[in-house]
Parts: sequence; structure tokens; C-alpha cells
Amino acid sequence: MKKNVEPCYYGDYLQLDKVLGAQSLQSEKYGDAAHEEMLFIIVHQVYELWFKQVLHELNAVIDTFNQSSVKDQQLTSVVHRLHRVIQIQKLMNDQIAIMETMTPQQFLSFRDYLVPASGFQSIQFKRLEISLGLKRDYRIDFDKQSFYNRLSDKDRELLEALESKPSLFELVDKWLARMPLLKMDDFDFWEYYNAAATTMLAEDKNTIESNPQLSEEERRQELKDWQSTRENFDALFDDSHYTQLREKGKFRLTHDAMLSALFIKQYSEEPIFNLPFQLITALTDIDEQLTIWRYRHAMMVQRMLGTKIGTGGSSGHQYLKRTTESNRIFLDFFNMATFLLPKSALPELPEKVRKQLGFHLK
Amino acid sequence: MKKNVEPCYYGDYLQLDKVLGAQSLQSEKYGDAAHEEMLFIIVHQVYELWFKQVLHELNAVIDTFNQSSVKDQQLTSVVHRLHRVIQIQKLMNDQIAIMETMTPQQFLSFRDYLVPASGFQSIQFKRLEISLGLKRDYRIDFDKQSFYNRLSDKDRELLEALESKPSLFELVDKWLARMPLLKMDDFDFWEYYNAAATTMLAEDKNTIESNPQLSEEERRQELKDWQSTRENFDALFDDSHYTQLREKGKFRLTHDAMLSALFIKQYSEEPIFNLPFQLITALTDIDEQLTIWRYRHAMMVQRMLGTKIGTGGSSGHQYLKRTTESNRIFLDFFNMATFLLPKSALPELPEKVRKQLGFHLK
Amino acid sequence: MKKNVEPCYYGDYLQLDKVLGAQSLQSEKYGDAAHEEMLFIIVHQVYELWFKQVLHELNAVIDTFNQSSVKDQQLTSVVHRLHRVIQIQKLMNDQIAIMETMTPQQFLSFRDYLVPASGFQSIQFKRLEISLGLKRDYRIDFDKQSFYNRLSDKDRELLEALESKPSLFELVDKWLARMPLLKMDDFDFWEYYNAAATTMLAEDKNTIESNPQLSEEERRQELKDWQSTRENFDALFDDSHYTQLREKGKFRLTHDAMLSALFIKQYSEEPIFNLPFQLITALTDIDEQLTIWRYRHAMMVQRMLGTKIGTGGSSGHQYLKRTTESNRIFLDFFNMATFLLPKSALPELPEKVRKQLGFHLK
Amino acid sequence: MKKNVEPCYYGDYLQLDKVLGAQSLQSEKYGDAAHEEMLFIIVHQVYELWFKQVLHELNAVIDTFNQSSVKDQQLTSVVHRLHRVIQIQKLMNDQIAIMETMTPQQFLSFRDYLVPASGFQSIQFKRLEISLGLKRDYRIDFDKQSFYNRLSDKDRELLEALESKPSLFELVDKWLARMPLLKMDDFDFWEYYNAAATTMLAEDKNTIESNPQLSEEERRQELKDWQSTRENFDALFDDSHYTQLREKGKFRLTHDAMLSALFIKQYSEEPIFNLPFQLITALTDIDEQLTIWRYRHAMMVQRMLGTKIGTGGSSGHQYLKRTTESNRIFLDFFNMATFLLPKSALPELPEKVRKQLGFHLK
Repeated sequence: MKKNVEPCYYGDYLQLDKVLGAQSLQSEKYGDAAHEEMLFIIVHQVYELWFKQVLHELNAVIDTFNQSSVKDQQLTSVVHRLHRVIQIQKLMNDQIAIMETMTPQQFLSFRDYLVPASGFQSIQFKRLEISLGLKRDYRIDFDKQSFYNRLSDKDRELLEALESKPSLFELVDKWLARMPLLKMDDFDFWEYYNAAATTMLAEDKNTIESNPQLSEEERRQELKDWQSTRENFDALFDDSHYTQLREKGKFRLTHDAMLSALFIKQYSEEPIFNLPFQLITALTDIDEQLTIWRYRHAMMVQRMLGTKIGTGGSSGHQYLKRTTESNRIFLDFFNMATFLLPKSALPELPEKVRKQLGFHLK
Repeated sequence: MKKNVEPCYYGDYLQLDKVLGAQSLQSEKYGDAAHEEMLFIIVHQVYELWFKQVLHELNAVIDTFNQSSVKDQQLTSVVHRLHRVIQIQKLMNDQIAIMETMTPQQFLSFRDYLVPASGFQSIQFKRLEISLGLKRDYRIDFDKQSFYNRLSDKDRELLEALESKPSLFELVDKWLARMPLLKMDDFDFWEYYNAAATTMLAEDKNTIESNPQLSEEERRQELKDWQSTRENFDALFDDSHYTQLREKGKFRLTHDAMLSALFIKQYSEEPIFNLPFQLITALTDIDEQLTIWRYRHAMMVQRMLGTKIGTGGSSGHQYLKRTTESNRIFLDFFNMATFLLPKSALPELPEKVRKQLGFHLK
Repeated sequence: MKKNVEPCYYGDYLQLDKVLGAQSLQSEKYGDAAHEEMLFIIVHQVYELWFKQVLHELNAVIDTFNQSSVKDQQLTSVVHRLHRVIQIQKLMNDQIAIMETMTPQQFLSFRDYLVPASGFQSIQFKRLEISLGLKRDYRIDFDKQSFYNRLSDKDRELLEALESKPSLFELVDKWLARMPLLKMDDFDFWEYYNAAATTMLAEDKNTIESNPQLSEEERRQELKDWQSTRENFDALFDDSHYTQLREKGKFRLTHDAMLSALFIKQYSEEPIFNLPFQLITALTDIDEQLTIWRYRHAMMVQRMLGTKIGTGGSSGHQYLKRTTESNRIFLDFFNMATFLLPKSALPELPEKVRKQLGFHLK
Repeated sequence: MKKNVEPCYYGDYLQLDKVLGAQSLQSEKYGDAAHEEMLFIIVHQVYELWFKQVLHELNAVIDTFNQSSVKDQQLTSVVHRLHRVIQIQKLMNDQIAIMETMTPQQFLSFRDYLVPASGFQSIQFKRLEISLGLKRDYRIDFDKQSFYNRLSDKDRELLEALESKPSLFELVDKWLARMPLLKMDDFDFWEYYNAAATTMLAEDKNTIESNPQLSEEERRQELKDWQSTRENFDALFDDSHYTQLREKGKFRLTHDAMLSALFIKQYSEEPIFNLPFQLITALTDIDEQLTIWRYRHAMMVQRMLGTKIGTGGSSGHQYLKRTTESNRIFLDFFNMATFLLPKSALPELPEKVRKQLGFHLK
């Protein structure tokens, strides 16, 4: 109980007069009331409210990473907030089922009154994408060109300002890259890891070459796969080769960030890596949920409109499906599995190093 | 494409200035900003938006049943709308997981600024309950007494007016009761059903009495259960006995409505019963989802507040858990399974009757 | 209670000795027990149990449509069973989250013991695909060639036999095509529909040409879109043109089936179309859920393996993502929205026809 | 790739002959095949498979806590495994919707063949309850008496042996109680906490007494609530009073465990408390999900059987609903919110103590 706190009433506190007074049907305005337009409006408003909440969390996380150093206590908060974002994303994905209770025919009864409104104009959604790391250069052509044309001046400026700030992707990349763990005293993780990978690959090759059960064709195929894995690892350990591939778009993380992330994934059970591992996993989940949302959204649009042109003038579900893959942000965290070694192929960390990774209670 | 339709823009159409401008944190007002208060506000606003949508659907359904007769085409709409309500309810239930990403400690950091606001003051939720059929007389004591005291005059009048109108429960009850199917020409369903039940029960009793595998105690117990079933059926076929039990609160449906519902459930595969059966099932689902919501909500409150007193001054989760069972509306549709006979115990409908239940395409 | 029914015990009835005795870890066999292999086995076994249930429902539905005529009562059953399939699919989609609680590193600890096992070898999943309508000719190349090579003789024969039987797609196509409703007495739905579409399109064109707000470029674009819509409709009304497009793969439904489906969708509120409309919607949902499953499964594989080669030797998630779109079965039901007219553009059915579509209770 | 690993085939590996050959319908055996019995069997078999997986995880967690000390690395594993359990529980809860696609009438068509089988006989479910901490003494009477009577000798012995081993509840209680953090050097957390609580409560009382906006009745009520809170805190700080209340069933955690849990919850953002906090939250979630499952299961039984007696001879849904609340295991983690202080009422930890709670990287 606080002193001097004025009484606070439910409806006033939630400003329900505004929130519940913000549904006016276009179809009614033209004397052709369509029952389902209410659903259409409310579903979109709920999405916008969730977007606001997601931005609230992302901005707090970005602020944390914008500091010169991130304290452990703050990392707890970061992970907590990203987990909340994931929960909201799951709910937003399931919400598509509610829109799908509207039949295409019901949609048709008011769709013509909405021209040229379109989901593409959600500023909050664009802010969300840009904040995560989907800046202009990563967008596919259609998206790139049409993106800024449709905006009001104010919105364009807002988004352009946001593009110039570091995104969560960039901040996490930097934070990973500056992790001090890769080299400690006389321990060099990468020498270590390279040796383990090389041993494992040599054994694999030997097994393939000497396995009597393989037909010649199978052996050839397996050696080819082996070669491709070998080349992947070579790139991983060669900074300039990696950077070259990164410029071609094969990776998005910088080399040091990739190596740190790999270290964390390989030794995730070490207490000091617990929160960083949760962070990486959370960002992977956020990317996954966003991708599922894009995919389901594209399918829903196809169901509503078939091959018709969308109200925003876009080419509809075909376009949406392309963005599903092209707009991935933390894709490296998915593809990283390529470089993981089985625990058994990896020597234990030296006791001295492990100690540094633990808690010290007297 | 319509003539003379003015251009409609996404943000204006959805009135996002209102919707996204309606979050002002009490904790900020007192110079003690709490990050999680945003979540608290937005979660409640989303619930209110869904309540508005659910009321939009329920009111349309109630309007339909308020007519002197309900056309088949309209029944299609009714079922469609109730299915949408169920989808929304499922999402609202899952939304509790989002609130639970707030720890009790985070809640404490702004809770004292909200006194005496409380979820109990949601007028829309009360409208929803009353519209479904949860009128004053059915509420438990605490609820009853505190219900109207906390309201503004305007809200009290609005709810009192709503209480005086027929609820969905009452309208469906009437609609079921006036179904013309129970007696057709020389076919009397109840005579028919009574005979089937009596034969089945006699066989059951015989089986129990002659089963050599039962111990004497088991036989006694089974006969006792049998007797209780027998008495249930007797009440079903005896109008005055049924009405007496109904007055004691054992049933809520009128006798004729109960019989119609049973007929529909027993012959749900007949085309003419398809929509009525879907209607009954939908109302059962709505009751189930609402009950799950109450239960999960009660558990969430317990998790947030322990045994503390709620911001609305109520005794918190204990009270909420009591309402879970006491506030059931379509409970009869659950308990009706008591009276169902297996298909095999039920003679087929006479061909003449079946014909009347089908479609007639030349 | 039945006479002469032997007592039935929980564990025996469910044959739990078999079901719970069917988990033997490969990693244990090689003296290298991996905790997570149990999860891997059980998740797959649960999928197989659900596949069995889905096949149980689909086979019953296929049997119904294999009859010379489908009674209305049977259609109720068909829809009920397809709704159950959809519920199971939703659960199977959510089940992916459980597999994702296994980290890639945990998977690596036993993956090498599973060579060359692969999800591709699930016979039940192939049966499910074939039963729905995904026959050999529709599979993408990789899938086609590798499909039968990996099977045992017995399994190959089983699947080949299944390929030679009519699939659910084919049966539903036939059932739709033979619907007697398209021409009744002097009412010809297609003449009717064609006229309505033509009128609407002419008005649209007029609006575009006379709209002063459009720039010349916008007008050109809109006229181009209009032209494409016009051509779509022309194909719809021209049997030979439609058939030609169908041979090129643009449609999969036969012309008559497409027209019937469209009639049903346009007049779904008519009682006689209620069950057929539910059937079409259910098949659309089944396709949607299956597609979501494929997509999420592909993403999960990417997360587990990165760009590594799958245990079944397949090219992994890239291949899986391709099948997401190529393996759609009821895609026409999605794209059909292209041809829907707004209710307002459609004249009401003549009273005489409507009457034939209703129930007749004296 | 491993040397000398024999090829492993999908169907053999998963022992699908056993798993998919374990569905034999009782109704078929009696020549009265019921389509839905397959669903009934498969739903239960899937539950049993998930129970096996949950036991696999719980047993591993119990083994960890059975050691003399739990290493930090192991705590990471424990939390990971409990999170998996929660995911499985959520899926099991949603699975109830699948059973509910069976109508009561469909259930009736084969129910009489299942006598006296019942869900109560699931040994795995009982193992799961006992492993978590629901031992005999905590069960309600009906459950207690009927529990062991229905079992085979072998099963009874198995469960009795399990009852004599420490449950997860007991192990976690001990682990919490022996946490060395409550007293460090000259820092005594409880002195500290007691002082903070006392100050806060004194301020609260003062506010109530001097608030001019309260009516006399409101003031009386608020002071009464305050008194009850004061007494709760008194019990918390008084070992013998707490123990007395615990013996009466008000708490289940021992005093020291309760205090540790509270410390962890109050300072959850400290790195060293991150995993313990996740552990407590996970156990709270497991209890919540299990409770939701019990509640939904009870409602489903009511829907299927009405007030009929269950096949296991139990009094059905009434009994099930009672167990929902009586069988809570980690209820103290819910009620603990009673004792939480707002962060602002809590002095910061002394720097010296905080340092001990962090990581030490040179």
C-alpha cells in the first residue's frame, strides 16, 4: 500500500473508451454493413497491441546491449524478456486460426471498402523487423522498392532513423565477438577445436574408405559429402575465407561472433554459458516463430484471395511466401549445427578453464 | 472495386492513434516506472477487444433466436458464429501463459498503484456472462452482493437492463422446447424412448442378478447404482417430477427442451439434426472453455498473489475457484450423457419419420 | 452392461507390454547410452500411432465415397471424421516443439547409430499421402526416384497397390462432379454466374477507366490486373480451355467438380450445402495443417543438422522445404477464392430452387 | 560416422510391429465393431508413451538430486529436463480435445466391453505422481483406500517400493534447505528480511490509519487484512510456529527450504540464483500443468458419462474434481507470493555478498 496514491478504476486505467471506441466499420459508413468487418478490425488491432508489447521488450533488450558492458544480472533480464516475446509470438501464430473463421466470401463483402489499406503499412511491424535486424539491404527487391514509397513523411523519417541505429542482430554479434573466453592464458579454444574436428574427420574418412558394406557408388557419394563437410570446417577456421563467404551472403555473423556462439553451444552446460546459451536459443526461437508466422500468413492470404491482387496492390501470397525464407535474421544459429562436434569427439576443458567458468562460493 | 469509395489507410482505418495511445503506466505517473506494467495493461486491453468481438457474435446470435422463427439458413450462421467464439476463447485461455511470464515480484513493483482497480469491474465480461445466461440469481453470494455495489450508475443501469432481456440460455431453451419433432403423426418419441430405456434397464438388472462372477458386495453395489440410474430415467419421463427437481437446481433446461436436446443427441446423424446438434455441441464447448478460463485464471491469481487480498478487495483465488463450478451455464448439456442410450438399444426411426428428416432432391 | 463380457484390464487391453516394451536405444546397444535417444524414439512412435488413427479415419471416409451414392447421414460421419483428423494434425504440429527440446548437440550424441534410418521410410506417412491424393506423378523428382528404391518388397507392393486405388482427392472430385444441382429445370447456375461475373467485371473496368484519382501508371497496372482476372473467369466458363490449363497443372479438380465446389461456396448458408461446405472446408484445413507440418518439420531439421546430410541420405531441409509447396493436394480449394463473387453481386436464387435446397417438415 | 555400426532401419528401430500391432478392439472381438474404439485405444497408448518419457526425465532428475552434492553443470541438465516435461504436459493437456471429438453416444457403443478397465489403473501415472511427491498420506480417502486394492501383486510391490524412496519434492526440499547462502560471514538474510518486512508493514498500517479517503468500515476491513498479513509473516520468521502450521498441513516445505526458496525468488536476477530460480519456476509449472490436466480430464469425463458411474467403479467426475485441488504437490511455490516484498522495500545486497553471487572472470 502506497501513500497518496489516487484511486485507480479499471475502465479509466485501461482507457477503454479509446480502445473499445476505435472500431468503425467502413462497410457501415457506406450503408452496407458487413458483420465480419468487426472481426477484421479487432484481429488487426490485437496484433498491433502485441506488436507494441514486443517492441517494448525488444527496445529494453537493445538498450541493455547498447551499454559498454552487459552485467550478468542484466542478461537474466534479457533472456526473460525474449522468452516473453516468444510466448507472444506463439499466441500471434495461433491467432491466424481466428482470422480463418472468416470465409473468403465474408471477406469479399467489405474488402472493396478498404482500398488501398494493407497489412504492409503496419509501421510497428516494420519497426519490429528493423529492430531485430532486417534492414533495407536484406529485403527482397519488391519489398525494397515498395517499402518507403507508401509511407507518410513522418513514418519514413521514423523508420530511416531506426535503420541508422544498431539492430539487435548487430549488437548481439558484437557482444559475442568481444567475449573474452576464446583465449585464456595458454588455452586456445580454436586450436583445440580444430584439432578435434580434424581427428574426427580423419576417422570418418577412414571408416568410409574401409567399410566393406558400401557399394562403390555409395562410397563415392559419402566421400563427396565428407569433402563438403571438410570444406565447411576449413572455412570456419580460416578468417579470410570465412569473411569472403560472409560477403557473398553465406553467413551473417562475423567470424569471431560465430566462433563464440559455437563455443557456447558446445559447452552449454557450463554455468557461465547458461545464460548466453539461453540467449542464442531464444533468438533462434524468435526467428523460427516469425518465420512460421510469415508462412501461415501467406497461406491465409491465399485462402482468402486466391490469386487475386491484395488490397495493398502487392502480388499477394506469392510475394509473402518468398519473404518467408529471404527475411530470416538469425539463420546462422540454425545453420550452425553444421559445425557441431559430438560431445565424445571433444576433449574435456582443462580443469583450470572449467574452474573459471563456475561459481565460487566459499 | 467500388465506385466513390474514398481511399482508406491502414493506420487511420484501425484508429491506431487511439489504440496505441491508450497505455499510460501508473507507475510512471508516480515516478517509479515498472517495465512490466505495460504487459499488464496490454494483456487486459487485448482481453477487452476479444470480449467486444465475442459480444458482437453473441448479440447477433441472440437477435436471431429472438425472432418468432429461426430459418435453416440462419442456423448455419448461428453455428458459424459460435464456432468463432470458441476459437477466440481458446486463444484467450492460452493468453494466460503470457501473463504468467510476469513474476509475482514484478507484479508487486506496480500493484499498489492500481488500488482499487480489479478485473471484477470489466463491464464487458459481465455483459458476456449475463448474455449467455448467468443472471443474478445464479451467482454465488459474495458475487451477488458485491456485484452491483462497485458499479457506476450508468453501468449498473446498463447491466440491469440486460438482465431483464432473455439470455441465450433462455432463448435456446425456448427454441428447443418448441421443436415440432417430438410427436409426428402416430409417432411418439417419448413412448418409444421410454420403452427402449425400460428394456435396457431390465436386461441390466437381470445381468447383475445372474452374474456368477460378482461377489455379494459387488452385486449389492451394482444394484444400488442401477437403482440410481432407474430413478434418473423416471424423472426424465415424468414432467412434474422433473419440474420439481429443476426447481431444486438439479436441471436448468425446461422439460421439453431437455427432451428435444436428447432426441437431437440420439439421432445427430440425421440431416435435419445436423445443425441443431452442432449448436448444442458449440454451447457445450463455450461453457467448457469459459470454465477452463475461470480455473486457469484462479490459479494464475494464486501464483501472483498467494493468499494476499486481490486489488479489488476480493478474497482472491479461493473465490475465483468457487465460481468455476457455480457459474456453469450449459451444464445440462454435460450431464445429459446420463440419459443417453447406446445406439444398439435404440430401435431405428420408422422409415416415414426418417424421410421427413432428410433432404428432398428430385 | 453386457452379458458374458469377460473382465477387461487396463494394461492388457492397451497391450502396454508391447507398447512400453518397444523402446530399445541403439546408443545403449553400443555401450554409449544417450539420454535423449528415448525422446527421439518415443516422439516417432507417437507420430506413428497418430498416423494409424488418421489412416483409420481416412479409410472409413474413402470407403464411404467409394459407394455408388453417399447418403446424407453418411456425410455427417465423413465431416465428423475429417474434423477429428484436423484435431490430430494440430496436435502433431505442436508436437514438433517437443522434439525441439533436444539440442543439436544432444542429437549428435546418438545420431551416428541410426544410419541409414530416416523419417522418409515411414510407410504409414506415405500411405497417408497417397490416400489423400499425392500419387507418384505429383511428387518432385528427387522424391519420385528415391521413393520406391528404399522400400522392402512387401512395402513396395503395398504402396503400389494403394496407388492403383482411387484416392480421397479423386473420389471427392467425382462426387462433386456428379452433384445434380448445377442444372435444375429451367435454372442454369452457370449461365447465371457468368452473367453476374460479366456485369461485375464491366463495372470494375468502368471504375478504373473513369477514376480521376489514379495516375496513368496506376491505371495501366490496374487494367492489367483486371485483364488477368477476366482471363481467369473466361477459363472457368470454357470447358476446353479449363481442361487445357488443368493438363498444364494449373488446376487439379475437373471442370465440373470445380463448378460444383464454387456453387457450394457461394451458397454455403443453404441447408443442403451445409455439409458439403463443411467437407470442402475440412479438406482445405487438412491440406493447410499438412503443409504447416512439412514447413515446421523442415525448419526443425535445419536446426538439428544445419546443412549436414540427413541420416536417410537426403539433402535435408532444402528438399523438405521444396515439398512444402509441391506436395499440396487440395490447393484448388485455396485458389478458388479467385472466382468468388461478393454476395451482393450475385442475384438471389429463384424461390423454386431455394425450396429444393431446404428441409421439408410438414 | 561410427565404425562397425550395423545398419538400422526405421521400422525395426521403432519396433513398429509391436507398437502398431497393439490395437485390438474389444467391440470387434464381440462382433460389434465400434469405429471410435480405435481412437480410445490410441489416445490412451499415446498418453502411456508420454508418461514413459516423463518418467525417463523425472528419474534422471531424481538421480541427480540423490547425490551428496549437485554440481552447477548438473543443474543446467535438471532444468532442461524439467522444461521438456512441461512441454510434454502442455501437449497432453491439448490432447484432451482429441478425445472430445468422440461423442458420448459413440463412447456408449463400446463402453460396456471395457468393464472394469479404468484410467485409474495406469501404473505409470501412479509412478509419476509418487515420484513427484504425491505419496499415500496425501491422497484423499477414496483414492487412498481404493488405490492398492485394484493392483496386481507385482504392481503393488513396485509402487510400495517407490513410496519408500525419496520423491522429487523431498529431494528438492532437502537441497533447498542445505543451501549455504542464508548466512554468510556477518550477513544474516533473515534478520535483514524481517527488518524490511517489519518496516513495510508499519508503513502500511500507518497509511491505512491516516488515509482520509477510507470510510470507517473500509478502514476496519483493511486493518483486518493487514493483521492477517502480519501473522503470516510472523509465522515465517518463527521456526516453531512454522513447523506447527506445517504439521497442520498449511505448508509442505520445511522451514529452511521455504526461506531459501524465498531468498531465491527475491534475488532471482543474481547469476547464482538463475538456475535455482528456473528450477522453482519449472516445478511450479509442472504442478500447474498437472492440475489443469486433472481439471480438464474431470470435465471430459462429465461430458462423456454425465453422472453415470465410471468403468473403474469410481464415482466419476465428482471424485476427479476433488483430486484437482487435493493432489497439488508444489503448492507452496504458488502460495509463497504471500511473503514476497516489492523490490523497492528490500535493501540491496551488500556488495561483498553480491560479489560472491557472481561469476569471476579474470
